[in-house]
Amino acid sequence: MTQADLSTHLDRDAAQQELFELLRIPSVSSDSTRRADMGRTAEYLRAKLATLGFSARVDQTPGHPVVYAERLDAPGQPTVLVYGHYDVQPEDPVEEWVSPPFEPEVREGRIYARGATDDKGQAYAHVRGAELLLSQGELPVNLKFLLEGEEEIGSPNLEPYLEAHREELACDVIVISDGSRFAKDVPTVTYGLRGIAYVEVRVQGASRDLHSGSYGGAAPNPINALCEIIAGLKDDQGRITVPGFYDSVVPLTEEEREMWAGLPHSDEQFAASIGATSLPGEEGYSTLERIWGRPTLDVNGIWGGFQGEGAKTVIAAKAGAKVSCRLVPGQDPADITRKLQEFIPTLAPQGVQVEVIDHHGGDPVKFDLSSPFIKAADRALARVYGKPAAFGRTGGSIPIVADFARILGAPVLLVDLGVNEDGLHSPNESFSQEDYFNGILTSAYLMQEIGGVQG
Amino acid sequence: MTQADLSTHLDRDAAQQELFELLRIPSVSSDSTRRADMGRTAEYLRAKLATLGFSARVDQTPGHPVVYAERLDAPGQPTVLVYGHYDVQPEDPVEEWVSPPFEPEVREGRIYARGATDDKGQAYAHVRGAELLLSQGELPVNLKFLLEGEEEIGSPNLEPYLEAHREELACDVIVISDGSRFAKDVPTVTYGLRGIAYVEVRVQGASRDLHSGSYGGAAPNPINALCEIIAGLKDDQGRITVPGFYDSVVPLTEEEREMWAGLPHSDEQFAASIGATSLPGEEGYSTLERIWGRPTLDVNGIWGGFQGEGAKTVIAAKAGAKVSCRLVPGQDPADITRKLQEFIPTLAPQGVQVEVIDHHGGDPVKFDLSSPFIKAADRALARVYGKPAAFGRTGGSIPIVADFARILGAPVLLVDLGVNEDGLHSPNESFSQEDYFNGILTSAYLMQEIGGVQG
Repeated sequence: MTQADLSTHLDRDAAQQELFELLRIPSVSSDSTRRADMGRTAEYLRAKLATLGFSARVDQTPGHPVVYAERLDAPGQPTVLVYGHYDVQPEDPVEEWVSPPFEPEVREGRIYARGATDDKGQAYAHVRGAELLLSQGELPVNLKFLLEGEEEIGSPNLEPYLEAHREELACDVIVISDGSRFAKDVPTVTYGLRGIAYVEVRVQGASRDLHSGSYGGAAPNPINALCEIIAGLKDDQGRITVPGFYDSVVPLTEEEREMWAGLPHSDEQFAASIGATSLPGEEGYSTLERIWGRPTLDVNGIWGGFQGEGAKTVIAAKAGAKVSCRLVPGQDPADITRKLQEFIPTLAPQGVQVEVIDHHGGDPVKFDLSSPFIKAADRALARVYGKPAAFGRTGGSIPIVADFARILGAPVLLVDLGVNEDGLHSPNESFSQEDYFNGILTSAYLMQEIGGVQG
Repeated sequence: MTQADLSTHLDRDAAQQELFELLRIPSVSSDSTRRADMGRTAEYLRAKLATLGFSARVDQTPGHPVVYAERLDAPGQPTVLVYGHYDVQPEDPVEEWVSPPFEPEVREGRIYARGATDDKGQAYAHVRGAELLLSQGELPVNLKFLLEGEEEIGSPNLEPYLEAHREELACDVIVISDGSRFAKDVPTVTYGLRGIAYVEVRVQGASRDLHSGSYGGAAPNPINALCEIIAGLKDDQGRITVPGFYDSVVPLTEEEREMWAGLPHSDEQFAASIGATSLPGEEGYSTLERIWGRPTLDVNGIWGGFQGEGAKTVIAAKAGAKVSCRLVPGQDPADITRKLQEFIPTLAPQGVQVEVIDHHGGDPVKFDLSSPFIKAADRALARVYGKPAAFGRTGGSIPIVADFARILGAPVLLVDLGVNEDGLHSPNESFSQEDYFNGILTSAYLMQEIGGVQG
C-alpha cells in the first residue's frame, strides 16, 4: 500500500473528455423511446472497464442491462464492490435548461448535463480512480463494479440480480457514491438513508367532463376532492395523519441530535440556496432532523381538468396526484404503502371513487458508525480534503442499499462526491470539475485505505 | 293578430334544407384558419334576411362580423330584438363523430352537425319563424335580428357593438334561444342565469424544482400548499368559506322552491346521466336549487410537478389551479373576484407565495316573472306544446345577457328550443327535427303573442 500523492498523476483532460462522452448518451431509464441509448451507455462502460484489464460484461435483465466487471488481483486483500447507476432522470422541463441536457458544457468550473452528478459523474470517478491506481501499479484490493440502468425507476431488476449473482458479488464492503456532501467544505461519510413509499392517487367523479354551469353545484368535482384528500394527510403542525404512520419510527438519539447540531448549518442560508422565503415542516425538529431523521409526505405531481391558457368552464371527470413519503429507520415501505392505501380513500368526500396505486418502495437504512471501513473512508477523505469527515445521514433514498446489505451481508460505505448545489433531478444539473477530480482521488485513496484494513 | 294554426303552412323541407346549408359552413370562431368561413356564414344570413324584406347588413368588428337586420312595419306594436350567434365550438375530438361535423345528416329524427342546436339551429328557427309569419301576412311586431360570430369565444366585441348601436337596437323585449329546455316534454321559459367569477391561483415555493429526498421535510411544497388552499375554500357542509361570499345573495323565494320542487326531476336519473354515483353539494338545498339558485366554487383545472408515467421524486417550484365561482342574483363578479383575491392568500401555509389572477367575470341575471312578455312566451309555448311552460333558471352563464339588459334597458326572454341530449359542445351535437320545426312555430306564435301585449 502506497501513501503517495496521486493527484499529480491524474489525467484531468482525459477524465473529463470520457465523462462528456458518457453524458452525451440520453440514458433516461423511464423513457421507453431511449431503450437503445441505455444499451449504448452500458456498452460504453463495459468497454472502458475491459481496457483497464477488468473481466467485464453486460448482463441483460427484463429491463435495462447491468454492467458487471471484476479484477481480482490482490489475494488476501479485502474485496470491494462499487455500485453506481448509469441511468438518469428525465430532462423535463427541458425549456429551463441553459444548455441542452445531453450536450455537456463547462461554465464557471461546473460540468452541466443531466446525470453530471447523479450518477454518471460520481460512478465514473470510481472507474477513473481504478485507472489512476493501475497507472501507478496494482490495485490494493480486489475490485468489482456493478453499474445498473434502473436506479431512477426504482431498480426493479436489481434485487433479483443480486440474488442470482450472490456468490459472484461476494465482498467485504460495498462502496456507493450517489449523493451530496454535507457542504462544499465538509467531506462527508453518510451513515443513513431515508426509505420511500411512492403511490399515485386517482380520483374519478362523473364518467365524462361536464360544463361547470350546467352541472356545477351538484356534480362531484374530483379536483376539489383530491385537494381535500391531500390537505387531510397532514395536520396543522405538519405531522402526517395516516394512522400508525409514526408507530415504528426509531427516534433520533440525543447523541445524533447533538452531533448534527454541531454541523455548520444555517437555516437562512439553506432557505436562500433554494430560493425559499422560509422552511416549513414538522414542528419540534431542526431542519437537518427534518430532512435526515424524520419521515415526510410530499405531493410530487398533480393534474386534472384544463391546464391551458385562459379559462375553460369544465368540471373534469378525473384528477390524480403522485404522493411519496420519505421513511426513516424502523418504517417499512410496504407497511406504509398499505396504510396509505387504507387511509386515503377514507378522506374522499361523497361522489368520487379513489384508487391508490403502489409505484415503488425502498427501505430506510442506518449503518454502524464503528465499522473499520467507515474509518478507512474517513482517512481517505482526510487525505483529499485535509480535514476529518462529518458523519451525517441523507434525506434521499437508495432503495437498493438495503438490498445490498441484506443479500450480500456486507456493510455499505456511502461516500458522497457531489454537493446539493449540483441540482440533481432539476434542470441544469451539474457537477463541479473540482469535485469530479477530487472524487477520482477519493476513490483511489479509499481503495488504498481499505487495502490496509484487516480482513 | 291571428291565432290561426300556422303549422300547416310550415315548409319543413325548405326549412331543413336551408339549415343544412348553414351547418355546412365550418364557422368555428376560435380557429383563425376559418376566418373566411365566418364571413361566408354572416353573408348567408344577411342575404336570407334581405330576401324576407329586412333591411340587412354585415357589420365588421375587430373580430368576426355581426349580422344586423330589421323590418319595422308594425307601427304602434312592440319591437322585438332576436339575438343569436352563428359561430360554433371547435369540432374536437373529431374522431368521435359518427358523421363528419360539417356534413349534416339526419339519423332517427335528429340532425347531426356542429352548431345544429348551438346556436345555428335555434337562431335560424327565428329566421324561418319570421318567414312563416310573412307567408301569411305581415309581421305582428317590429322585428330586429342581431346575429354575432363570437359567442363561443366570449363575445369580446359585442358589448362595444351594443354601446355603439344603442339607439338603433332599441326594443321592448329581447328574445334569445341558445339553450336547453328543462326536459323533452317540458317547454321552458328560463328567467335566470348564474354569473361567473373566474380566477387562476398560482403558488410558488422554492425558486427551482427540488429533489424530494434531499429537501423533503424542510422545503415548501407548492402542490401541498395549493391543496390546502383549495380544501380551505369550502367547509364540510359544502359551503364556501370566502368571507362575505354569501352576503348579497338574493335568497330563493318559497314560491320558487315550490315551483322547482314540482318539476319532473329525479336525482337518481340525473346522477346516472353523468355517470356519477352520487350528487354532493351544499347542504340544505335540492339538486335544482344547487344548480340554478346557489353559487358554487369549482376547480376547473390543476397542475404542478411531475405528471408523466411512473414516479419522479421532485418537489415542484410551482403549482396552479383555475378556480371559478358560479354566481347568483345579488352577487357581483368584481366583488367576488376581489374577495377571492383577498382571502386565498390568507389560506397559504408558510413558505409559499400566492398570486390570484382575474380571468373574467359575468353578471348573474334574474328576470321579473310577472313581466307581460314572459306571459306572452308562456302562451306561445302552450300553443305549440299543448301544455303550460315551466319556469326555471339555468346554471350556466350567458355573460352578454346581462349586457343586453343593462345597455338596452329591455327584459330578455330566454326561450330554449333544444334539450340537454343535444350534446352542445360535444362530439355528435344534434338537434331533433321536431324541436327545430316546433322552434319555428314557437318563434312565430311568440311574435303574435308579443304583438298583443300593450306597449
